[in-house]
Amino acid sequence: MALNPNLSNKKRKHIPQDTNYYLQGMLRKDRQILSQAITLVESNLSEHQTLAQDLLEKCLPHIRMTQRIGVSGAPGVGKSTFLEAIGLHAIEQGKQIAVLTIDPSSQTSKGSILGDKTRMALLSNAPNAFIRPSPAGETLGGVARKTRETMLLCETAGFDTIFIETVGVGQSEIAVHAMVDCFLLLLMPGGGDELQGIKRGIMEMADIVCINKTDGENLKLAHAAKKEFQNALHLFPKKASAWTPPVLLCSSLHKTGIAEVWQQISTYFDYVQGNNYLTKNRKQQLHYWFRETMDETLKQWFKQHPMVQQHWDSMEQAVIENQISAFHAAKQLIQLVNQSSNDEH
Amino acid sequence: MALNPNLSNKKRKHIPQDTNYYLQGMLRKDRQILSQAITLVESNLSEHQTLAQDLLEKCLPHIRMTQRIGVSGAPGVGKSTFLEAIGLHAIEQGKQIAVLTIDPSSQTSKGSILGDKTRMALLSNAPNAFIRPSPAGETLGGVARKTRETMLLCETAGFDTIFIETVGVGQSEIAVHAMVDCFLLLLMPGGGDELQGIKRGIMEMADIVCINKTDGENLKLAHAAKKEFQNALHLFPKKASAWTPPVLLCSSLHKTGIAEVWQQISTYFDYVQGNNYLTKNRKQQLHYWFRETMDETLKQWFKQHPMVQQHWDSMEQAVIENQISAFHAAKQLIQLVNQSSNDEH
Repeated sequence: MALNPNLSNKKRKHIPQDTNYYLQGMLRKDRQILSQAITLVESNLSEHQTLAQDLLEKCLPHIRMTQRIGVSGAPGVGKSTFLEAIGLHAIEQGKQIAVLTIDPSSQTSKGSILGDKTRMALLSNAPNAFIRPSPAGETLGGVARKTRETMLLCETAGFDTIFIETVGVGQSEIAVHAMVDCFLLLLMPGGGDELQGIKRGIMEMADIVCINKTDGENLKLAHAAKKEFQNALHLFPKKASAWTPPVLLCSSLHKTGIAEVWQQISTYFDYVQGNNYLTKNRKQQLHYWFRETMDETLKQWFKQHPMVQQHWDSMEQAVIENQISAFHAAKQLIQLVNQSSNDEH
Repeated sequence: MALNPNLSNKKRKHIPQDTNYYLQGMLRKDRQILSQAITLVESNLSEHQTLAQDLLEKCLPHIRMTQRIGVSGAPGVGKSTFLEAIGLHAIEQGKQIAVLTIDPSSQTSKGSILGDKTRMALLSNAPNAFIRPSPAGETLGGVARKTRETMLLCETAGFDTIFIETVGVGQSEIAVHAMVDCFLLLLMPGGGDELQGIKRGIMEMADIVCINKTDGENLKLAHAAKKEFQNALHLFPKKASAWTPPVLLCSSLHKTGIAEVWQQISTYFDYVQGNNYLTKNRKQQLHYWFRETMDETLKQWFKQHPMVQQHWDSMEQAVIENQISAFHAAKQLIQLVNQSSNDEH
């Protein structure tokens, strides 16, 4: 390992500079080194990004077939309690689990960053569990990409079951859906999907629907909701996996139905492994991530180009003064970059 | 005007090739030509896009200070009925109104595309109103950009009050907020904001909150909801405009409270004109749209680059086979483009 002693910058002082340090650490399941590697991936310093990407490339041959499970649901549905219950159950079945979250809203409120570990107190103390909240200070695109890279690191470090929690409404579901094998939607007893703020598009992504908080006075309501959602699911077009999403009842608080949910997850994985959808889907996901990464990398490169740095402000000013349309300003900047490459020659 | 007779392609046959044809038509308030110009803006053919961008640049000097109003709210809150009621009221006050919608979900369901005009039957027949639904077949980014450009065309054609309707939950609100002066949030009587699927971030954007469907049995509920939302709004940080968002009650069905909502919109515009926030905000919005347009144009340029076209497939395949990370593949493609610019020289 190489803790570079020459870097005096405070931000950099604990970032070792050698990808083998991380890779070997992760392969021997050293959690502290795994955490360091995640910090590296989350860093926006360009030298850290280069190192992180080299590391991720070295991880590729070590990633085996794991189970990636997305867990979504509106605020208040009890995602953390559910994750704690099912996570502990999975550990009992011999699994090594990692719980990651995608929460772009935490960028402004900061609330959930502190909350994640305390909300899953038992799980965070379990020896075979690893919990890591959303990276801070990122756009949704950044959060999603870094969460996916964190997932790859966790898999390299031997975690075989990855739960990715997300916040319920909007675009983050699409990003999570593009990185998991199984998408689990948590709902509350009572209320149609519109009342629960769950859009049709999110219902359509679900491989398994769970009605949480099925306990006490909610029992009757939960059974009615189950019927309602089963009917709703029947109206959706057949899934690409050919799998029919079941609707289950559970109570994370009373630990009822949790074993059944886990059983269904296993049945689902057997099914999509059997018909080869699992492999096919992962390949399709790589298409998606390649396009996302391409866009991101291209933007970065362009922004840092000397010609863009030199002309951006004046061009932007012209747009703001309505002297030129945004489109023509963009075209001109691209032309400047193109010409400058020519001139270098 | 120049209806180019040489273009046999069916898609192109009704697209005149001369920007002056559109500009002059719009300036004399010819609605048919306005509609044609919008079709041009919505087209994804690159020659249409070039023409559309030239046209938009020519429109810039003709755009005066209009009132741009965003209207958002969860599905079922009665946005169309509200827009019809307030639109007709605005026309009575001598306004020329355009109603545009941003509905990315219409790409899959197609439902609302047919529905928009029929849902606003009276308004769509009013002489001083112009209604245009979301462009089809677009990503959210595309929908948003094209809706904004459609707004600029409507303004060139003399419409002084633009309503932009959006679908309630998610990212489209952010895009709408970035193109309007006044953001109006519609809510239903009863139920907290969480139940209505309205995220805190969307509440925070609101300049005016209206509780719709305040009629019959809802009256009591509406007054309670008003109090609740007023309290909620007080907890938010002060707005950049220094304006305090009021909570109003209305019934679009019974046309009660509509004049008051319109009055509040006018008061709001007086206020933000007085403290110069209106102008400042529009400039900030141009920053946003410049960045969005830059990203979009850059992606297009890169995708169409001969080197990218030549190497994309093999690079993507390598990513999918896990032979190379997405990041390194992206870097290599950028390098190829850079080198080819050099070679051209």
